[in-house]
Parts: sequence; structure tokens; C-alpha cells
Amino acid sequence: MNITFADRIHGVPRSFIREILKIATDKNIISFAGGLPNPSLFPINELNQATNEVFKNAGSDALQYSNSEGYDELRKSIAKRYKDNKGINVDINQILITNGSQQALDLLGKIFLNENDEIIMEEPGYLGAIQAFSVFSPKFLSVPVYQEGMDCEALSKTITNHNPKIMYIVPNFQNPSGICYTAKNRERVAGLIKNSNILLVEDDPYGELRFNGDAQPDFKNYLPDQTIMLGTFSKTIVPSFRIGWVVAPDEIMEKLIVAKQAADLHTNFFCQMIINQYFTMFDNDAHIRKVSIAYGKQRDAMVSAIKKYFPREILFTEPDGGMFLWVTLPEGFSSMELLSLTTKKNVVFVPGNQFYTNRTGDVNTLRLNYSCANDKMIDKGIRLMAECIDELIGG
Amino acid sequence: MNITFADRIHGVPRSFIREILKIATDKNIISFAGGLPNPSLFPINELNQATNEVFKNAGSDALQYSNSEGYDELRKSIAKRYKDNKGINVDINQILITNGSQQALDLLGKIFLNENDEIIMEEPGYLGAIQAFSVFSPKFLSVPVYQEGMDCEALSKTITNHNPKIMYIVPNFQNPSGICYTAKNRERVAGLIKNSNILLVEDDPYGELRFNGDAQPDFKNYLPDQTIMLGTFSKTIVPSFRIGWVVAPDEIMEKLIVAKQAADLHTNFFCQMIINQYFTMFDNDAHIRKVSIAYGKQRDAMVSAIKKYFPREILFTEPDGGMFLWVTLPEGFSSMELLSLTTKKNVVFVPGNQFYTNRTGDVNTLRLNYSCANDKMIDKGIRLMAECIDELIGG
Repeated sequence: MNITFADRIHGVPRSFIREILKIATDKNIISFAGGLPNPSLFPINELNQATNEVFKNAGSDALQYSNSEGYDELRKSIAKRYKDNKGINVDINQILITNGSQQALDLLGKIFLNENDEIIMEEPGYLGAIQAFSVFSPKFLSVPVYQEGMDCEALSKTITNHNPKIMYIVPNFQNPSGICYTAKNRERVAGLIKNSNILLVEDDPYGELRFNGDAQPDFKNYLPDQTIMLGTFSKTIVPSFRIGWVVAPDEIMEKLIVAKQAADLHTNFFCQMIINQYFTMFDNDAHIRKVSIAYGKQRDAMVSAIKKYFPREILFTEPDGGMFLWVTLPEGFSSMELLSLTTKKNVVFVPGNQFYTNRTGDVNTLRLNYSCANDKMIDKGIRLMAECIDELIGG
Repeated sequence: MNITFADRIHGVPRSFIREILKIATDKNIISFAGGLPNPSLFPINELNQATNEVFKNAGSDALQYSNSEGYDELRKSIAKRYKDNKGINVDINQILITNGSQQALDLLGKIFLNENDEIIMEEPGYLGAIQAFSVFSPKFLSVPVYQEGMDCEALSKTITNHNPKIMYIVPNFQNPSGICYTAKNRERVAGLIKNSNILLVEDDPYGELRFNGDAQPDFKNYLPDQTIMLGTFSKTIVPSFRIGWVVAPDEIMEKLIVAKQAADLHTNFFCQMIINQYFTMFDNDAHIRKVSIAYGKQRDAMVSAIKKYFPREILFTEPDGGMFLWVTLPEGFSSMELLSLTTKKNVVFVPGNQFYTNRTGDVNTLRLNYSCANDKMIDKGIRLMAECIDELIGG
């Protein structure tokens, strides 16, 4: 028989990262390619205790079907964290629990994007968002991000010349670049968006993992009615549970719930209860501080190694939080070519072209992840990469 | 600001069942409206033990991100169950773990359905499938189902006059009707599909919950390369974990994995491990037999009560498995009207119009769920319903 797929699925990029990660499970490989939290920092015993409490107290209620919006007590805990940690008031009816924040992207794409609708993306930007939105065949409008945040001149032109529905950003320790928008940049960006019909999707998986400096104001403060906030426990507590959330105004929430029901009825309820139980039993902020301090040390090790081994002309970001830094080779050199050289020395990373909405060309940028490597691996891996960079640039 | 949603989301029906279920949480209500497994039959202690083993043996591996396809050991267990229980050979690479079988419907819609693509649905049919596919704005072609299975004459005409891509069926103890296609009917249906370009999606959440008679052959036997099988642990073991699966040929699996990645990266990995651990520690078949016997008794109680109280002219199915039976009022009477009468007596059910792809009109059919009610509630609820039916028909 003759199988014909929907047009939309042909436009969705496969994840190159998946392919690299398959190589990276080899124990001999030094991998800076992943985006995984460090498993040695997972609160295993705490989650085990919380799980036993859930079995003891909730019994079959923890195992039954539940409502699409999510576990009310968990939604209350999330609202409380917004209030306590950021001073933001969130109505629990505006919180929908999703399968990681990735699912929130899928649901937003579903309810907002007609074919060829325009959407502003950071360049470089989060691959998972590019994939999720691609399913709905939009037009991506790329706006470059720099050390300070978004290129406001480019953003202003884009808003003038186009009619985007959504702007998707990761303003804190962005994946892939590790940059954090300054308060000044946020204010300017918000000012440009304010009188438009653009909804701002503010994804924040890494904001709590800050090891230097102070938190910057959330976009929700500048654009209270125009901002959709995404969050997740995957980077701070436990990835495998796949529990994230979206905060959106009532009108949008109503459509999100319809889309959520159609997508999978509701998110794993048992694990929603475990996370909430964990909150009531343990000090999650202390746990997050511990993780942040550890990542800060790993970031320092990687920055030191880069300064020690890489040639001067290589640029790189020095993030104050999160799990990634971003390297720029001299103009004209290919990070894909560099990857084929480093792979021979058992070191892998993600070439930058994965993070652009137009990935046809080759680029001179690459992403390094430091959260899963120890100091020794970092030093050795960066040294081996430096040898390959010399070979590439020198040759 | 002015919010504009995507066209697709306007066509997705809200679940009326959700609204009824909100009423049904009231303890004074006798609810035949839900589609919930009986929580008193959940293997709580077994799952608690399995969970502790996962924490003990897998540690942080159970908490980390994982692959989009699903936990390999669980996929092996699923393949083994197909082999042992149905004699069907399934390659584990053709199994994708999803968030309940509901997500499989969403992913299939994504990869197959362009706007206005045609899809054959049972009439009445599963509301969750109608919702999931509606997101992709297809044209639904309804084919009636009867006591024996699908109306083959209607099916034949539909295939001749249209060009459907997919046919979605629940041949075992269908939701909402409780009917099970006979072997003869399956053979005829398969014969009609065989030389077409139609993919058959065989959803089987209830097949294992048989309390009378013998299992009927799966469509996979008749149409090995044309059948996509869906399965779930929600009805037999635990709903809140949201773990189901889809079995599809390689070419389709490749696209499903792309769609799964874009949708939510992967399904809750921790709970995949728990289910598999449960399989290694306990006799799941014995558990399912216990559940089936219990549901058989509840079904008997409901059938007896209907025979005792309902007027003779009311038709109803007498299912050999699953959780539902289907009632047909005399021509011209409205099940929505009946619901407003029974609601006053604190009895609720789902009116039949929820299960048709064209729900504009009113219908004389309704769905009764018996898996969550005990004998006393069933007797009382059916007696009160009978009073309302007398009022409706007599009035």
C-alpha cells in the first residue's frame, strides 16, 4: 500500500542531538553535547520518601485518572513559588500542568499557529521549540541575541515589517548560548512588544540555576497581560517525571485545556503528587542552591580550560547560570568540521547550526554543556578540542 | 490586545463528559457517566513494592531524561505479551511508548492528517479519538456499528465513494457501545480494507477485560502491514501513570518518533520502569482476571436491573467485557432530556450525542458505565432512571 504523510511532518527537523547522544552513551566519550542535568545531584532519597508518603496517604487516588488542568495542590505550590521567589501573583486557574515545558510549546503551537503564521525566535534559539512549532508550519522570524539580550534594532524592524503572533524567548541562561538578558534589555524589548498584538512566551527552565549575580526582572512584570510563562521541574528536581507547566490568561487557558485533553487527557498524576509531597517535606530552595553551586564550579572549570587551551581568537560566553556556554570560531570556519575532528578524539558537542531556524548552511558556532562533566573530563575534553581547533584553523 | 487563535482549535469539541464528571464527584450522585476503572481493584501494594525496587536498583537512571521511543525493557515486555497472549510477533523497534493511547491518537493525527483528509470513524465512536483527530480538521466519515461489529455495506460504500487515509476502530468492547466485533465481521471488514490505501488503527484498551466467551482474532492477523495497534495500561493496571503505546511499521514509526520528540521529548520514564518492574515481580494476568471477574459481576447487576426496571421497548447491549453498555430509547426520544430528568434524581450518564462526529442533533442513545458502581448503587440508579424513562416516554 501507499502511505502518505501529512505535509506538516516533513518540515519538522530531526534532532541531530539525539544522534550525538547515542554516541555519547559510550563511556570512553567525553560529551559536552547533552543538555542533561547532573544525575549525581538528583534528590533520590527525598523523592523516594515522598513517593512512599504518597502511597501511604493518597492510596488509589494517586493512581486514578484525574483532571486535565493538573493536581490542584501542585498548582498551588507553583503559584506560591512565583509569589515567594519572584513576587508575581499567579491565579492557580491560570496554571496548566504539562509534560515538561516541551508539551506547553506543542499546545501553544496547536492553539495559535495557522500555517504561515509568523513567530519570532531567538537566533540562536532552543531546538526543542523550533521542533515543536515546526509541526504547525509557521514562518520563523529570527532575531539575534547577544551578550546583553535581544538585538532591539532587529526586533523593532521585525515588528514593523511583519505581523508575528508570538515571540518565544528564554531570557535566563538561554539554551544554547547561556546568556541572560540584562534588565535594561528586557525593558527595551518589553517596550517594543507592548503595543503590538504579540504574545510573549517566556520560557524559564534555567533561571533558578543562577550561580553569579542577581535575578533579573521577569517579562511578566513588564507585560502582565501579554506574557505566557513556561516552567519545569526537569532541570531543578527530576527530568524523568516530565512535569512542567504553563501560566496563561483565562482566555488562552480555556483553549489550552481543550488542546491538553485532546493530546493526552492529563499529565501523570502520581508524579505530580510526588513532587508536591517533596515540596511539603523538604527544602527545595536549599536543594536548588546546592545544584547551582555545583554547576557554577563546573562552569568555572570549563571557562578556565577554554582560557588555558583555546586560541585567543575563539569567542565564548561566560554564563552566570544554567548549563551551557556558546563558542564562536573565527568567521568562515565550520563547527561541523570541528565536530568530525573531535569525534575522532572521543569528544563531542553540538554544532551551532542546530539552533537556527534556517539550518541549511554551516556555521562557526557551537554549544558546550558543562553540567554533566567533572573537572578532569572538562580539562581533558577542552584540551583535545583545542588541538582540533588548531588543526582546523591552522590547516 | 487582540488574541487570534488557530483555526484548528475552534473545531475541537469540549468534553461534555468532563462537565458531567464535575457533578459526579458529589458523593450523593450515582454516576454511570465516567469511564474510570474501579479504584478498589488497583494493585496499590504491588506498585508500591515495584516502585521501591526501582529506587533501589535503578537509582538516578530512573530519574534522568531518556529516549523518545520509551524504556527498552518495557517495550520488550509489551512485545512478549503480544506474543504470549495473542501469538502476534512485534519487533520492539515498532513500539513507541506514549502518554496513554490518547497521545498515540494525537501523534497519528499529526503525522497523517492534512486539513480535509478523510478518516473513517465508528458511529457511535470514542469521544477521545474524535477530539484528538478534530485538532487536525479532517473530514470524518461515520460508519455505523451494530451488535456484530461494523456495518459492512456502509463501509463498502464509504470506501468506494471516498478516499480515507485512516480507519479508527475499537473492536473489543467498544467505548461507548460495549460491542465486540465477531470473527466473521472482522474478516469481512479486513477484506474490504485489504486492497485500499487505508491504514487501520486498532485501539484495544478493553480487550483483556473479557468476562464471557473467547477472544476474537486481532485485525493485525488479517492486515499485518496495514494495521497500527494501540494499547494502554490505564484500564488494566493504573490510569494515572498515563502509559500506553503504539505499534506501527518502521516507515510510520520514524515519523511518530519525530512527532513524539516535538510533543514532549519522551513519556515519564520513572513510571515506565515501575510498570516493567511490576511485570517482573507479579502475575499481571492473574490481576487482570480478577478485575475482569469483578466487572463481569457489575455488568450482570446492571443488565439484571435494566431487565427488571426498564420498559420492554428500551434496547441495550449485553457486553462480554469492558466497562460500558449502550442503551437505545424508542425513536424520537432524547437522551439529553432524560439526563435532565435523572440529574434531578441524582443519577447521571453520558447522552449518546457525545459519541457522534456530527453532534448538532439530539439522539435517543446513551452510555452507561458499570465499572465504578456497586450492586446497590446499580440497582438504585437503574430504578431511578426507569422512573425518568417512564416520565419521558409516558409524558
